[in-house]
Amino acid sequence: MGERVKYELGEDRIPRVWYNIAADLPPPPPVLHPGTGKPIGPDDLAPLFPMALIAQEVSTEREIEIPDPVREIYRMWRPTPLYRARRLEQALGTPARIFYKYEGVSPAGSHKPNTAVAQAFYNKQEGVKKLTTETGAGQWGSSLAFAGGLFGLEVKVYMVRVSYNQKPYRRALMETYGATCVASPSNETNSGRAILAQDPNSPGSLGIAISEAVEVAAQSGDTKYSLGSVLNHVLLHQTVIGQEAIEQMEAADAYPDVVIGCAGGGSNFGGIAFPFLGKKLREKRDVRVIAVEPAACPSLTRGRYAFDFGDTGHLTPLVKMHTLGSTFIPPGFHAGGLRYHGMSALVSHCKELGLIEARAYHQNPCFEAGVLFARNEGIVPAPESNHAVKAAVDEAVKAREEGKATTILFNLSGHGHFDMQAYIDYLGGKLVDQDYDAKALEASLAQLPKVAAE
Amino acid sequence: MGERVKYELGEDRIPRVWYNIAADLPPPPPVLHPGTGKPIGPDDLAPLFPMALIAQEVSTEREIEIPDPVREIYRMWRPTPLYRARRLEQALGTPARIFYKYEGVSPAGSHKPNTAVAQAFYNKQEGVKKLTTETGAGQWGSSLAFAGGLFGLEVKVYMVRVSYNQKPYRRALMETYGATCVASPSNETNSGRAILAQDPNSPGSLGIAISEAVEVAAQSGDTKYSLGSVLNHVLLHQTVIGQEAIEQMEAADAYPDVVIGCAGGGSNFGGIAFPFLGKKLREKRDVRVIAVEPAACPSLTRGRYAFDFGDTGHLTPLVKMHTLGSTFIPPGFHAGGLRYHGMSALVSHCKELGLIEARAYHQNPCFEAGVLFARNEGIVPAPESNHAVKAAVDEAVKAREEGKATTILFNLSGHGHFDMQAYIDYLGGKLVDQDYDAKALEASLAQLPKVAAE
Repeated sequence: MGERVKYELGEDRIPRVWYNIAADLPPPPPVLHPGTGKPIGPDDLAPLFPMALIAQEVSTEREIEIPDPVREIYRMWRPTPLYRARRLEQALGTPARIFYKYEGVSPAGSHKPNTAVAQAFYNKQEGVKKLTTETGAGQWGSSLAFAGGLFGLEVKVYMVRVSYNQKPYRRALMETYGATCVASPSNETNSGRAILAQDPNSPGSLGIAISEAVEVAAQSGDTKYSLGSVLNHVLLHQTVIGQEAIEQMEAADAYPDVVIGCAGGGSNFGGIAFPFLGKKLREKRDVRVIAVEPAACPSLTRGRYAFDFGDTGHLTPLVKMHTLGSTFIPPGFHAGGLRYHGMSALVSHCKELGLIEARAYHQNPCFEAGVLFARNEGIVPAPESNHAVKAAVDEAVKAREEGKATTILFNLSGHGHFDMQAYIDYLGGKLVDQDYDAKALEASLAQLPKVAAE
Repeated sequence: MGERVKYELGEDRIPRVWYNIAADLPPPPPVLHPGTGKPIGPDDLAPLFPMALIAQEVSTEREIEIPDPVREIYRMWRPTPLYRARRLEQALGTPARIFYKYEGVSPAGSHKPNTAVAQAFYNKQEGVKKLTTETGAGQWGSSLAFAGGLFGLEVKVYMVRVSYNQKPYRRALMETYGATCVASPSNETNSGRAILAQDPNSPGSLGIAISEAVEVAAQSGDTKYSLGSVLNHVLLHQTVIGQEAIEQMEAADAYPDVVIGCAGGGSNFGGIAFPFLGKKLREKRDVRVIAVEPAACPSLTRGRYAFDFGDTGHLTPLVKMHTLGSTFIPPGFHAGGLRYHGMSALVSHCKELGLIEARAYHQNPCFEAGVLFARNEGIVPAPESNHAVKAAVDEAVKAREEGKATTILFNLSGHGHFDMQAYIDYLGGKLVDQDYDAKALEASLAQLPKVAAE
């Protein structure tokens, strides 16, 4: 046989700590209370999150120990494999070496369980009985359903109604894991009832579902809220991806010139990128880092770096981030996990500091890259992950044109088994590459909250 | 951390040979020509299969070398992991140790690519341009689509019409890999047209789809036929499963008292069981081996050991096997991969020799076991695999009752990501445990071909 294509690590190589990039960056802007405009403290967040996660949210410690029970569960699928995409390289005729870290081997099929398990653990430890959350396409909801089940926590998922109706199989996965799933907007919350009063047929949105889940958690003593991306502690938990990748790249006798991840809220991107950025910041180890987003929801490439709400109902604190405005509604496209108006504050901070690049693609070229990948590497990527595949292919083609043996690493954040309708639409020529409405974006940005600190 | 839960092997531990159990068994009955009633020779099969596979079909060599290009592709997902199901053990409160080999990590999500890749390789080597095959639930069709794509072979899949309509996502997977998929019965073949003339709304069956695929291959010079189970060479290719499991069990310092696999045509069962049976036959290493089948299609437990056709159109040779008769139509149930009237000749032979046990379960208890498994181990099994899970759970409960630390190994042949409708039906209380029609079975058995050799 030729050189290895798969770089696996033993269970003992699961990282023992999460890497906190905040330790290596200048302090990011504070998170503000929407009423007072003043920085919030831990007590403001206590109704929603357990104290351990609040502490992680604001920590500047470089390394945060992963509790043993979390590592025990990680062993079900971690370390995840790192692959060399030799067939894809050959298909592209590129001198580049393309590596990808594959997070689709987790029970829920994406990187999301890395944080779901940690969040469930800390909530259980602090006596929480029930978790609420939102989900769009369902990757996050099924991950929290899985994790909650393992720790004996009740899980209630508010699923964007249009997805609830279109994706019964993702819903079935959540229910198989023991969670309860309701269509959002629902009649169960003030936020939901307010929307339904205006429009009984509302298709829902991620912002509305967040408002519902937050409202329920805030009103109940034994219930907390869980978020699958955006927040600092979520990205922290995802750094197991990049840490393992560094060790696996060493085993492959390689180090990436370029690291690529798709970015919606920023968690899989931060997961693969932050450990490499840490080496860049501390060891001056050079690396280009590229965040890839959908052209129809381009927060990093077209949004404003400003304080904004995380949800539609304006129940959350104000975070300084790249945002399209909390009232921005992107046109329809299939990568549901990338349909968010904002971006992780830490990723936004890195962008402002010039540590990362960002680019945006339309969906058809992403699916074209995904099908090429599937036919060569076997794995059918999630629509979100196709954005990373597309950027990797473009970098490999550029390397061919420049005659450079570039080393490319991307994160394949999940498989597309629950997204085959998107492939049907793509193969049937039915996918439209819609642009966002520039006027609507202007209007949405005009409604950004006024903040004295800016 | 505690003891290991995952036993992985390096790429260099992918087996170098397939294990041929025929070398260690008394000769099985010959395969007969349906016209003459005489044993067939290689030339009779040449229109359908490449000579290399025909040679494997009749070989009595114990070890058959795996070609390097096949091992190269196996590296995409092999060796597959072996897991210790610690959480399931705890949930059952059993002293038994439960291990499972997980074949769902393959690109198509089941054990089927193990033989699909080998078959595509040998066909390509002998100049074949196109492969035809049938598929029911779609596991096999998507596996051959994947394998054909890697070798540049055109793949045409005749998919049972009812599945074609009910499982658009499996179909999309085949098309994503580049295959063509048509509903069977189709207008493209004599076999299909004959059925449609009788019943334009025929839902199709595996037997009909086999007839269509065989007919097309037999009539074209550069087209061959590919079967995903039943045949000796198919089971041969699957023995990588059991060989790896033996080495992984050694790493776990364990040897199974019981080996379990679900059985439709017999390929995943043979794959896990034959290498252990080989050790039993050659080294007197004791082991119980259990084949698990659906109560609604119980060839091993209720069929007759007799010569029968493999298809409805009676285009195949006659094979001595446990059969319900080629006209037997099982009642509806969700494990489409187990809806076959016959059983591998080698598995049937082992059953007659007293080397294996067989048992049958209804689908509701199988799904109950599958949901218990998913909530503890994270993986949602395919409906077929749930039969093996159920038997493993029953053996573990028996071990608890008897106070024995039994070591159980089962093959988790695939994941259920494309079968979530079955889980929706189960969780919604809509699954019926139908028995087969005893009178229809009697009638079907009465129509078995008369063979002088019997």
